[in-house]
Amino acid sequence: MSLLRIHYPWTKAPFLASAPMLGAATPALAASVSKAGGIGFLAGSANSDALDKDLQQVASILAQDRTTKANGSDILPIGLGFQLWGAKLSVAVSAVKKHLPAVVWLFAPSDERQLQEWSRELRTASQEKTKIWIQVGTVQDAKRAVELAAPDVLVLQGSDAGGHGHKRSASTVTLVPEVIDYLASRHGASIPVLAAGGIMDGRGVASAIALGAAGAVMGTRFLAATEAGIAKGWQKELLKATDGGVSTGRSTLPDRLKQTVGWPEHFDGRALLNKGHEDEQAGLSDAENVALYKQELAQGDDSWGAHGRMVTYAGTGVGLVKEIKPAAEIVREVHMSARKATQNAAESLRDSEPHSKL
Amino acid sequence: MSLLRIHYPWTKAPFLASAPMLGAATPALAASVSKAGGIGFLAGSANSDALDKDLQQVASILAQDRTTKANGSDILPIGLGFQLWGAKLSVAVSAVKKHLPAVVWLFAPSDERQLQEWSRELRTASQEKTKIWIQVGTVQDAKRAVELAAPDVLVLQGSDAGGHGHKRSASTVTLVPEVIDYLASRHGASIPVLAAGGIMDGRGVASAIALGAAGAVMGTRFLAATEAGIAKGWQKELLKATDGGVSTGRSTLPDRLKQTVGWPEHFDGRALLNKGHEDEQAGLSDAENVALYKQELAQGDDSWGAHGRMVTYAGTGVGLVKEIKPAAEIVREVHMSARKATQNAAESLRDSEPHSKL
Repeated sequence: MSLLRIHYPWTKAPFLASAPMLGAATPALAASVSKAGGIGFLAGSANSDALDKDLQQVASILAQDRTTKANGSDILPIGLGFQLWGAKLSVAVSAVKKHLPAVVWLFAPSDERQLQEWSRELRTASQEKTKIWIQVGTVQDAKRAVELAAPDVLVLQGSDAGGHGHKRSASTVTLVPEVIDYLASRHGASIPVLAAGGIMDGRGVASAIALGAAGAVMGTRFLAATEAGIAKGWQKELLKATDGGVSTGRSTLPDRLKQTVGWPEHFDGRALLNKGHEDEQAGLSDAENVALYKQELAQGDDSWGAHGRMVTYAGTGVGLVKEIKPAAEIVREVHMSARKATQNAAESLRDSEPHSKL
Repeated sequence: MSLLRIHYPWTKAPFLASAPMLGAATPALAASVSKAGGIGFLAGSANSDALDKDLQQVASILAQDRTTKANGSDILPIGLGFQLWGAKLSVAVSAVKKHLPAVVWLFAPSDERQLQEWSRELRTASQEKTKIWIQVGTVQDAKRAVELAAPDVLVLQGSDAGGHGHKRSASTVTLVPEVIDYLASRHGASIPVLAAGGIMDGRGVASAIALGAAGAVMGTRFLAATEAGIAKGWQKELLKATDGGVSTGRSTLPDRLKQTVGWPEHFDGRALLNKGHEDEQAGLSDAENVALYKQELAQGDDSWGAHGRMVTYAGTGVGLVKEIKPAAEIVREVHMSARKATQNAAESLRDSEPHSKL
């Protein structure tokens, strides 16, 4: 049995997590993903009360759930994600002490030493019951995370991911095997890796597993879950968009429009390109762009769209999102289709033996 | 049996091609790949005599080869790639008539109607014996290629690829399944797709097949083949480089340094970043950068390196290239390791049945 199935005994294979997307990852979404045999995540905010309320809500949904309780442990079978540059360790420690989530997922430190401090404090606060996952976007960051914090899991985010990520990075196709080769070359406990970025369905999960990952994380796909906490206008755009390699783009414009200050310099965000990006290219100043963005923000769901200005985070796989459906259904479909994709691959290689005699 | 094994009967599963890399893809490299059960490619130039010489050399190497001749056909069991914006159809037609290569691979038209004209003329010239492959980098281009030219194979190049490709595109993880879904939605003959970009070993090939591809193309990996026609300095850099998401970058600088004019506007090239890129960022003019590049060019193998100025094309998977070895050995290793990766994936999913009763 894999390490992940031991640590997270309610999960089913292939191992699947929903990303801790700020705002979008509601208690209902996290709980649904875990109930269906994945592991759902909340995005931890710096607001202690809001986080406590979210965790209580998840606990209440899951209290009656036989599947996630089957392990008889006292952990809350979901995870919490923190963007370290803007988060408070004291808030995380309180939340972990009170609710004992299965995982805390650390991302985007302003100083890499935060990884060390956070993982040490959170392990102590949970008596080692809460596992530490660290998300990285390069091989070098993976090495530093392992050296500093010995995480239980590395989440490897490739360039196809929607939302925040590295300005410059590889996709999962090369990032995953290169990190795995590094991990294999070390002397130390084995660390499972999860692939994130562009994984939209069972085929993507199967491809991650073929690369050597122990499982996968999906973000954009869960933005189109019934339980996602995003505007209907945003969800509608996800269903409409195709060809994400050209319809999305990486930029710091989303942060500038939202006047979010503090992301480490090497991060930007992938979103559907729209009028805001177009006007920026044509020379519009940030001040003017922000003013126009705020006008549209007030207009609600109609302000989304290619000719709109709303920040519409999405990964390059957005063209594979065709339907809004309950998160549990997404998890079940991914589980089934990943098996099918893997079986098909195995069969296609049974086609002939290579290098047999003529 | 798959369509590819019928059309290219000397090939073994998984289906693997070496990319038609201008200069690098020598007759010896192409012949070695085909002899080992892949399909090797030459890069077709606009120079008729040079191309004819290369094809004669391949024919002479393969004349005595039992494996590739086993099909008893009169085709030359390799392919020819053309960058259409700079190629001459008359040169391609002559080469096809005289040598009957198994494939002509069309890439980068300056006008998409070239795809229609070239495929029609080449099918006629070869009496339908030479298959037409078209390389694209977006879903939209895939649709247009199918509508205009009904190719026998679509090569889907993701953003991780080294050398020339789209300035903006997705990686294989989303490009491959989205194009496959489009192809499945059509009424018409099935068209196999091959994944290209970031595929360095059997794990990458297995991931492509899990996504639904019929096989894969490798470029950067074959730059480090014994037979590759590139400078030793370049090969040395490929072995040294790691973390390709940050050590390589997309730019039009390589074309500007080499004073290559004519690439369609939406193309650039991925290469290892070095002093030329750094100086450009710092404000150096193209004229000065070109002059410094030419000085270094004269110095030979020592001019390569992170502090050098040579154009060192490489994909993001460059950190997975650890050794220079004969192309046949690369093909055999990929065949074996792709099987292993696929078997491992199938076994990891056998770990538990999802959604069984508790």
